[in-house]
Amino acid sequence: MLFSDITLLNDHYEIIPHAFVATEGDTIAYVGTERPEGDFGREYDGKGRLLMSGFINAHAHSPMTLMRGYGENLKLQSWLNDRIFPFEAQLDSNAVYWGTMLSMAESLQYGIVSTSDMYYFCEDIARAVADSGAKANISRSLTNFTGQEPQTMESFKEMKVLYENYHNAENGRIKIDMSLHGEYTSDPRTAKALAEYAAEIGDTIMHIHVSETASEHEECIQRHGMSPAAYLESMGLFDVPALAAHCVYSTEDDIEIFRRKGVTVATNPVSNMKLASGICDVSRILEKGVNVAIGTDSVASNNSLDFFEEMKVLAIGNKVAKLQPEIMTPLQIIKAATEGGAKAQGRADCGRLAAGAKADLIAIDIASPNMHPVHDMINNLVYSCGGRAVTLTMVDGKVLYENGEFTTIDIEKTIYEAEKATEGILKKL
Amino acid sequence: MLFSDITLLNDHYEIIPHAFVATEGDTIAYVGTERPEGDFGREYDGKGRLLMSGFINAHAHSPMTLMRGYGENLKLQSWLNDRIFPFEAQLDSNAVYWGTMLSMAESLQYGIVSTSDMYYFCEDIARAVADSGAKANISRSLTNFTGQEPQTMESFKEMKVLYENYHNAENGRIKIDMSLHGEYTSDPRTAKALAEYAAEIGDTIMHIHVSETASEHEECIQRHGMSPAAYLESMGLFDVPALAAHCVYSTEDDIEIFRRKGVTVATNPVSNMKLASGICDVSRILEKGVNVAIGTDSVASNNSLDFFEEMKVLAIGNKVAKLQPEIMTPLQIIKAATEGGAKAQGRADCGRLAAGAKADLIAIDIASPNMHPVHDMINNLVYSCGGRAVTLTMVDGKVLYENGEFTTIDIEKTIYEAEKATEGILKKL
Repeated sequence: MLFSDITLLNDHYEIIPHAFVATEGDTIAYVGTERPEGDFGREYDGKGRLLMSGFINAHAHSPMTLMRGYGENLKLQSWLNDRIFPFEAQLDSNAVYWGTMLSMAESLQYGIVSTSDMYYFCEDIARAVADSGAKANISRSLTNFTGQEPQTMESFKEMKVLYENYHNAENGRIKIDMSLHGEYTSDPRTAKALAEYAAEIGDTIMHIHVSETASEHEECIQRHGMSPAAYLESMGLFDVPALAAHCVYSTEDDIEIFRRKGVTVATNPVSNMKLASGICDVSRILEKGVNVAIGTDSVASNNSLDFFEEMKVLAIGNKVAKLQPEIMTPLQIIKAATEGGAKAQGRADCGRLAAGAKADLIAIDIASPNMHPVHDMINNLVYSCGGRAVTLTMVDGKVLYENGEFTTIDIEKTIYEAEKATEGILKKL
Repeated sequence: MLFSDITLLNDHYEIIPHAFVATEGDTIAYVGTERPEGDFGREYDGKGRLLMSGFINAHAHSPMTLMRGYGENLKLQSWLNDRIFPFEAQLDSNAVYWGTMLSMAESLQYGIVSTSDMYYFCEDIARAVADSGAKANISRSLTNFTGQEPQTMESFKEMKVLYENYHNAENGRIKIDMSLHGEYTSDPRTAKALAEYAAEIGDTIMHIHVSETASEHEECIQRHGMSPAAYLESMGLFDVPALAAHCVYSTEDDIEIFRRKGVTVATNPVSNMKLASGICDVSRILEKGVNVAIGTDSVASNNSLDFFEEMKVLAIGNKVAKLQPEIMTPLQIIKAATEGGAKAQGRADCGRLAAGAKADLIAIDIASPNMHPVHDMINNLVYSCGGRAVTLTMVDGKVLYENGEFTTIDIEKTIYEAEKATEGILKKL
C-alpha cells in the first residue's frame, strides 16, 4: 500500500509535508518525499491527512469494557465491592471474548494498535485480539489472598499454559507478559515464585500495579517496611523488563529503582483522576530518565479509550498538579504514546514510522477546523485533535479500521453480543 | 424538519428511545413518542443517533483561535507578554472576522450552538457570528490602566455603539453583554461607570473574569481589602445578571455573594488546568445553589472547543482535586453545559429540548463502539463520547453542520483566510 502526498510525523518527530510511505507485507518499506517505484495494491490519497505511528496502550483491562459507566460517583471501596467485583464474579468466556472484541473495536477507532492487557480469562482475550487483527501483550495477573502454595494455584498454571500457547502467536502480534496484580493482593511467596518463573523463561515483561493509591502505598510500607517499588524489586520482579502501572505515589527513591532496573512507568491519567487517586508526577519521572508509556486503564474507570484525550489530560493534569504550565511538552507526550509504549511491550520493531519497522500506522484528519492554524502540528495533535479524527488504522500492514468501518470486526454483532453478555450478568446480580 | 425514531435527552434529563421531534421555523414544535401529523420538509432518520439540546459555551475569546498552539509550555507571564499580547497588538478587523469564523466552525462541529464571547473588534465578531448562523452573547471588555475618564475611552464608546447596533440582532441570535475585563485590569471609576450604564440599559449580562489565578485574587485583597467578588459587588457590577468566569480561587464568602446576587459561575476546566491556574471547586459552588455554566476559554489556552472533553475534564478534575470520586455527577455536568449556559446568557427559550423552546439541537452518534454497553446513557455522553461524535448541529431550526459539512460557512475559505491572517501577523512580529 502506498500513502501518497501525505503529511507525516517521522521517527525523529519531524513533520514532513507531501511525503510518501509504502508498506510491504507487515513492514514499512519506504519513507520519503519522492514517489517510490513499483506497483501498489492500493494508493491512499494523503490530502488533509497526517500519518503517524499508531498508539500503544500500555495498561488496560479490556474485558471491563462491559462495565462502562457501571457504578459511577461511588467511593473507591463501594465501587469495587458493590459494583466491579460482583460483576466480575459472573464473567465467563463468552462475555470476556465479546468485551475484549468491543474494546479492540474502540481501540482501533481511536488509533490504538497494541494494548498491554492485564486480566484473567486470558485465552478468550487472546482469541479476540487474534480475530481483531490488533496487537496485545496479555498477562494473566496473579493474586493470592489465602496463602496457597503459588505453584498449585490455577492462575499460575493458566499463566504458564498461556505463555506456552500464545507467546509470539499470530506472527508476533500477541505476546504474553507475566503479571503480579500488585503487592497488596498477593504475598511474598507468590511474588518470588513468579519472579523465578519469569527469570527462567526470560523473554517476557513483568506487568504490575504499583502505588496507584495513597493507601496502597502506605499500607505496603506498614507491612513490609518498604515502598511497593522497593518490595517488588526485593522480590526479584524487576529482574526481567518490567512495566509498573500508575506510580501515582512513587517517591524519588522509587523512581531511582525504576531507572536502575529499566522499569517502564505506565501512567493512566484519566483513570487516576476519575477514581480520585491522584496525579502521577510524570515530568519528574521523565526527568530522571525513566521510560514512560501511557495507559487508559479499564473503561470501567475511564470510561473511554480515546488516546488523544488521554494525552491531553496527561499534559494538563501534570501542569495543574505542580502549578507549572511549562512542564510536559507535547513532544514528550507523543513519544510516550508511541515509542515509550513499544519499549514497554518489548516491541523493538514497533512504535516508529521508519522503513523496516512494522506497519502499525494511523491516518488523522488534519483538514478540520480544530486543526487550524498550524503554529506547531505536534501541539495540535496533543491538544486540539480528539480520537474521532483518526480516519484509518493499520496493524502489520493491514487496514483494520477506516472511516467508521472495521475490516476484521463485525461491529454490529460485537455490540449485540457485548450488550447481551452484559444484560445476562446484570440479571444474575 | 422531523427527527424520527431517535433517542432523545429531554428537558427532564430522561432518555427517551424511539422519539419524534419536529421543528417549525426556529422553534421546537413537537416532542413525543408518536409520529406527529403533518408534512415535513425533511425527515432525519434517528437510527443510532441521540438528539439533545446544543451546548452553550459560557466563556470564550473566539478570535484567539488564530493563536492555537502559539506559545506552549511557557510560564503565564511569559506566555502573555512574549506571545499573546504582541500577537494581539497586530490584530485587525479581517483577522478577527476569520478567526471568529474558524471558531464558529469548530464550535458547530462540536455541538456548541451559542457562545459568550468577551473580546474587542466586536463588530467583526458579530458579523462572523451573524454569517455563521450561530448564536453569541458578545461583550466588548473594558480595561483601564491609565486612569482615563471612563466615558471618554474609545472602548466605552464602542461598547455603547455595539449594544445599540447589535443587541437582539439576527432574530435574537446575537445579544450584547457588558464586560469589565477584570478587577486587576481596571480601576474603580471604570467599574462604577460600567455598572451605571448597565443598570440604565437593564437588559444585558455583565461578563467578568473573577479570581482566575491565586495572584489575581490575593492582589485584589491587598489593593482593596476585599476579594474580587466582594469588590465587583461593591462597585454595583452584580446589580444586573452577571457571569463570573473562572472563580478558581473564590472563597465561601465569594460563593455566598454569587448566590445572593444570582451570579452564574462559568468554569473553564481545561484552560485552568493547562495554564496551571488551578481547579475551580464546582461541586461546592453547585451545592450552595449557584448556577454553573461551562466555558472553553480561548483556544490559545485550551487548545480546542471540544465540549465533550470540557465536560469530562470538569468532572475528573473536580474529583481528583478533592480526592472524592463521588462528586460531580454526569447529570450536573450536562445541565451546566446546556440549561446552565442558557441561563448565563439570559436566553430563557434556549438550552432545553422541549416544545416551544428554540430549535438549537445536536444529534450524536451513539452507534459507535465507545458508546456501548449502555448502563447509563448520560454517563456515556459525559465520559465516553468525544466531540467528533456530533453528526448534526441545528441553530434556530436551521441545520448549520452535518457530517463534516457546513451549510453557512465556506470552511476551505475560512481556513485559508485564517491561516493567511495568522501568517500576516507573525511576519510583523
